[in-house]
Amino acid sequence: MGLTLTEKIIKSHLVKGDMTKGSEIGIRIDNTLTQDSTGTMAYLQFEALSIDQVKTKRSVAYIDHNILQTGPENADDHLYIQTVAKKHGIYFSKPGNGICHQVNLERFDVPGETLIGSDSHTPTAGGMGMLAIGAGGLDVAVAMGGGEYYIINPKVVKVNLKGKLNTMVSAKDIILEVLRQVTVKGGVGKVFEYIGEGVKYLSIPERATICNMGAELGATTSIFPSDEKTKEFLEAQGRVEDFKELSADKDAVYDEEVVINLDELQPLVACPHSPDKVEKVSGIKNLKVNQIAIGSCTNSSFVDLMKVSEILKGKTIAENVSLVIAPGSKQVLTMLSKNGALANLVSAGARILECACGPCIGMGQSPSTDAVSLRTFNRNFEGRSGTVSAKVYLVSPETAAVSALTGVLTDPREFKETVEKIEIPEKFLINDNLIVSPSKTPEDIEIVRGPNIKPFPKAKPLSDDITGKALIKVEDNITTDHIMPSNAKLLPFRSNIPHLADFCLTPCDKDFPKNAKENNGGFIVAGSNYGQGSSREHAALAPLYLGIKAVFAKSFARIHKANLINNGIIPLVFESENDYDKISKGDELEINDTINQVQTGTVYVENISKGEKYKMILDIPERQKDMLICGGKLNQIKKSEK
Amino acid sequence: MGLTLTEKIIKSHLVKGDMTKGSEIGIRIDNTLTQDSTGTMAYLQFEALSIDQVKTKRSVAYIDHNILQTGPENADDHLYIQTVAKKHGIYFSKPGNGICHQVNLERFDVPGETLIGSDSHTPTAGGMGMLAIGAGGLDVAVAMGGGEYYIINPKVVKVNLKGKLNTMVSAKDIILEVLRQVTVKGGVGKVFEYIGEGVKYLSIPERATICNMGAELGATTSIFPSDEKTKEFLEAQGRVEDFKELSADKDAVYDEEVVINLDELQPLVACPHSPDKVEKVSGIKNLKVNQIAIGSCTNSSFVDLMKVSEILKGKTIAENVSLVIAPGSKQVLTMLSKNGALANLVSAGARILECACGPCIGMGQSPSTDAVSLRTFNRNFEGRSGTVSAKVYLVSPETAAVSALTGVLTDPREFKETVEKIEIPEKFLINDNLIVSPSKTPEDIEIVRGPNIKPFPKAKPLSDDITGKALIKVEDNITTDHIMPSNAKLLPFRSNIPHLADFCLTPCDKDFPKNAKENNGGFIVAGSNYGQGSSREHAALAPLYLGIKAVFAKSFARIHKANLINNGIIPLVFESENDYDKISKGDELEINDTINQVQTGTVYVENISKGEKYKMILDIPERQKDMLICGGKLNQIKKSEK
Repeated sequence: MGLTLTEKIIKSHLVKGDMTKGSEIGIRIDNTLTQDSTGTMAYLQFEALSIDQVKTKRSVAYIDHNILQTGPENADDHLYIQTVAKKHGIYFSKPGNGICHQVNLERFDVPGETLIGSDSHTPTAGGMGMLAIGAGGLDVAVAMGGGEYYIINPKVVKVNLKGKLNTMVSAKDIILEVLRQVTVKGGVGKVFEYIGEGVKYLSIPERATICNMGAELGATTSIFPSDEKTKEFLEAQGRVEDFKELSADKDAVYDEEVVINLDELQPLVACPHSPDKVEKVSGIKNLKVNQIAIGSCTNSSFVDLMKVSEILKGKTIAENVSLVIAPGSKQVLTMLSKNGALANLVSAGARILECACGPCIGMGQSPSTDAVSLRTFNRNFEGRSGTVSAKVYLVSPETAAVSALTGVLTDPREFKETVEKIEIPEKFLINDNLIVSPSKTPEDIEIVRGPNIKPFPKAKPLSDDITGKALIKVEDNITTDHIMPSNAKLLPFRSNIPHLADFCLTPCDKDFPKNAKENNGGFIVAGSNYGQGSSREHAALAPLYLGIKAVFAKSFARIHKANLINNGIIPLVFESENDYDKISKGDELEINDTINQVQTGTVYVENISKGEKYKMILDIPERQKDMLICGGKLNQIKKSEK
Repeated sequence: MGLTLTEKIIKSHLVKGDMTKGSEIGIRIDNTLTQDSTGTMAYLQFEALSIDQVKTKRSVAYIDHNILQTGPENADDHLYIQTVAKKHGIYFSKPGNGICHQVNLERFDVPGETLIGSDSHTPTAGGMGMLAIGAGGLDVAVAMGGGEYYIINPKVVKVNLKGKLNTMVSAKDIILEVLRQVTVKGGVGKVFEYIGEGVKYLSIPERATICNMGAELGATTSIFPSDEKTKEFLEAQGRVEDFKELSADKDAVYDEEVVINLDELQPLVACPHSPDKVEKVSGIKNLKVNQIAIGSCTNSSFVDLMKVSEILKGKTIAENVSLVIAPGSKQVLTMLSKNGALANLVSAGARILECACGPCIGMGQSPSTDAVSLRTFNRNFEGRSGTVSAKVYLVSPETAAVSALTGVLTDPREFKETVEKIEIPEKFLINDNLIVSPSKTPEDIEIVRGPNIKPFPKAKPLSDDITGKALIKVEDNITTDHIMPSNAKLLPFRSNIPHLADFCLTPCDKDFPKNAKENNGGFIVAGSNYGQGSSREHAALAPLYLGIKAVFAKSFARIHKANLINNGIIPLVFESENDYDKISKGDELEINDTINQVQTGTVYVENISKGEKYKMILDIPERQKDMLICGGKLNQIKKSEK
């Protein structure tokens, strides 16, 4: 029986476990990347491992999130990351060099290798035929130290691209169609592997767009074969030596299949407030637009922005539109500056932002109250733009550009003028002068820690007796945005858990942090799907700082559960959901003989206040049970080294 | 006796008063400009005047300050300004079009005309031979309504530029030399008029740099003659019809003289934390630099950035430097994009920011803690960068660019390679498509008021009996930054006085706003030079909102005193400074027969708590006494219309 490309890469990197689908496996990680909003914490954790030089093939630290710098915090973080990287064998991409996924694609991604990154859009590198997965900062730190990365061996979904895209229909529309079919919940535990005739017409940046937004499926990752297009791209980037042809075996067996007829595909749009609320652009009439934003790790490549430039050339944006464009990298911006395309964009009325994530993460360019904003980005969650009442629609660069001219959401096929077909250039302009190499004399490097860099909280080995109050009781579907809010005001404090902790769970109960501190910590009681959303580890670190010892929930979101365990907080599931109703905020709770109970996988919680006892389930692998007993991942690693 | 150019323009615009030096005069205003951080308030006040269309020759509303948009507030303000402008006959420069002073110079400034702007760097237009003065928002609103603008008829200082600048020494060094000689206090009540051989070698953007930073002298304004260079610039901007030759009479009499020998001038630097702490660049050795910022209304012209591009071409910035460049206007950015200069800047490692004020007003790019930041800007006040511990040095674009390469503050004359001499182009690239014209059917325009646009507080006619507590007692030299703090977090609320008021005087007493509200207002007791610093009217509006009826001080800064009067708050000066010591915070105070006392110019304040009485002086013209009795400028105007 043949193997899928996903299985081939997993097999060649398998360190722990076997190829059984659904079982936990550990894989060797060749490459890592971090961005700055998660990176400071990842490097603080790496430092706690006391490893001199990274053991990966290559690790790169990017600055692309917190670049507005409205106080010293961001620049302090940048300087910390720059110096810690230089000391420990990590490449540092200076602010201005671009978005991590775009730059990594241009300069570092290698077909057939593995990559984890402390950013949920790390799967972008799947466009290069790489197995690339988003992970928590601690997992990245451990991988930099040479440790394996654990995942559930995924199902593989065949995405069969039939035919060829029509003019003005683009890669973004392909992934929007996948989202329409599969939905944002449909990808959990799966890798989406793209094959079929349509693949060979897609350039690497276009494939990257598709893999990037595959993250919105909830998928483990997405991947394309490595073929002639891959070779062409690597040649144009001056690194053909990184090329290796890779594809699934002809007789590979897939767990599921999705079929898309590219010939029939139309320009699509994801409506507020979910990336899978997909409709045809042609079906939405007279939607007046206030803002259009082009860029982000999804659609900021040279090819994307050249298409936009061709459409805007010699024209003027509509009076009611503010058009902002953030090129994906210094390479893209330099090339657009050299060939006149940027002049076309500016002449038409575009505001040019720094090469960074920018408005996609709410880091600037929040639209006006109740505004309609068309964006070429990957997420349109309510409030993510920084404006709670804004209505964000996700579209292709073509749709965005044409709509900028008309001022209403417009099917780009209505643009009747000839638009030159954009191919990747024969040679990209290569100048890596904003990438600082690691030091050859690391002992000489002094790490600079500004006042915003605070030590992160460290879990302690599990106590046999745990007592405390039920400090808060929350409903179903609490997201990581509830647990640890993330916005332009709090993002500068991602390396400062003591500050962040004062905002922990405040969208649910503004007194929670105070309450937790006054009681020296305690417990969280939650409904189902607790901790859904982003992979941010801060949603575990802030509760740890506040002394949370366990969370009792009807169910947990997968990544948050792992983050809790990594940080020594016990995630317990009610055996009987009725018990959720029995606990009141303020009840005194107690767990006895904890270590033994954790080992058995069944934990009884006593409610002292009410004289009741609840049965809780801890359904995790032995590796994670041991981790809890050790007091989190870092302590487990340190113990194993002794 | 001949006239200076200043006197000629004043004479031709005189509406009230006579040419006596030191007396109050009213002049006719041909043009106004606003920026967004002061503009929202100016337009709310204009609306309160109930005038249909502006009566100036031209009024322009710019968006250049609050462009980061980390929440809906900025975009709401922009939309309000866009719609109110369109309705009332005002040109609207969309965000992305550039910094008000740069764009006004390129497209609108006219020799011999008058301009007031709600920004303290409005004197930039003096480079075009214009009498251009910074003013409060309410003054601009009144001028848009056709009212005259009042100033004290200024002294005129001759600045005699002898000889010609050497290579790598620039206009910025000239104004730094003036600041060194005259100091930041030396310009009060004066206009600086530039003449001499050196003038003819300076292009209009260079002259604008000098007049711009003349604001740091505390001057009323600065001005250059209108000559061949002026004509050349206007021709290149496609508006030679605006040219008019203008200069002082040969036998003009000046009140003071400053002489600068350009041949001997060296590159200069203003050291932390004042624009007049000027030293020779060559005299400061081994100053390692963390950040370099090029741009702002002082140094962001085409000529400035072309010089920088020539220096950086084919090179790489130092590893320890973050270089940010914000072009001054869309015209500048488009031209740099077309001619390859922008590609040189980006290739060398520059981060390109939007065409706006940006880091100059602390709106982003705050340096790291304790950082050294070299900036081509006009102000280096402590904390203005957003980083209290940062050390900001003000330099020319040449010094900034060369230092970016070396990573230490470097005399640009050490740069030995040939740098092409940059002249203004024969034709600037003209495309005004981001300037929205006023509507021809204003009745159809609906003004959009987002939730951040709050009504501003309106003063009431003076009561005969005023009572209240001494709510706060502050020291000498309280600045407008103390009274109404301004930073990236508060700037988005410049159209929201109720929100801003909660931060009023909080750097002195964090409970002041609460205290004022609980007591239904009261009085402020202050030392000498109360209200120094910026012209921001919010430092009067927030106290008005909090119910402040009078301020008792040892002395007042000029503009703040006018702003208090404009808003119906009585600025009283202790006849005996000892009385300052007698009042305690919390004392019950009372003024009786107020209207009569204001008319006499002597006001007695009773201290009920202590059984004392203090004699206070109100030394202001009749026009302002009447204004106080009417309850501020708007009420005075309304009364006069009846």
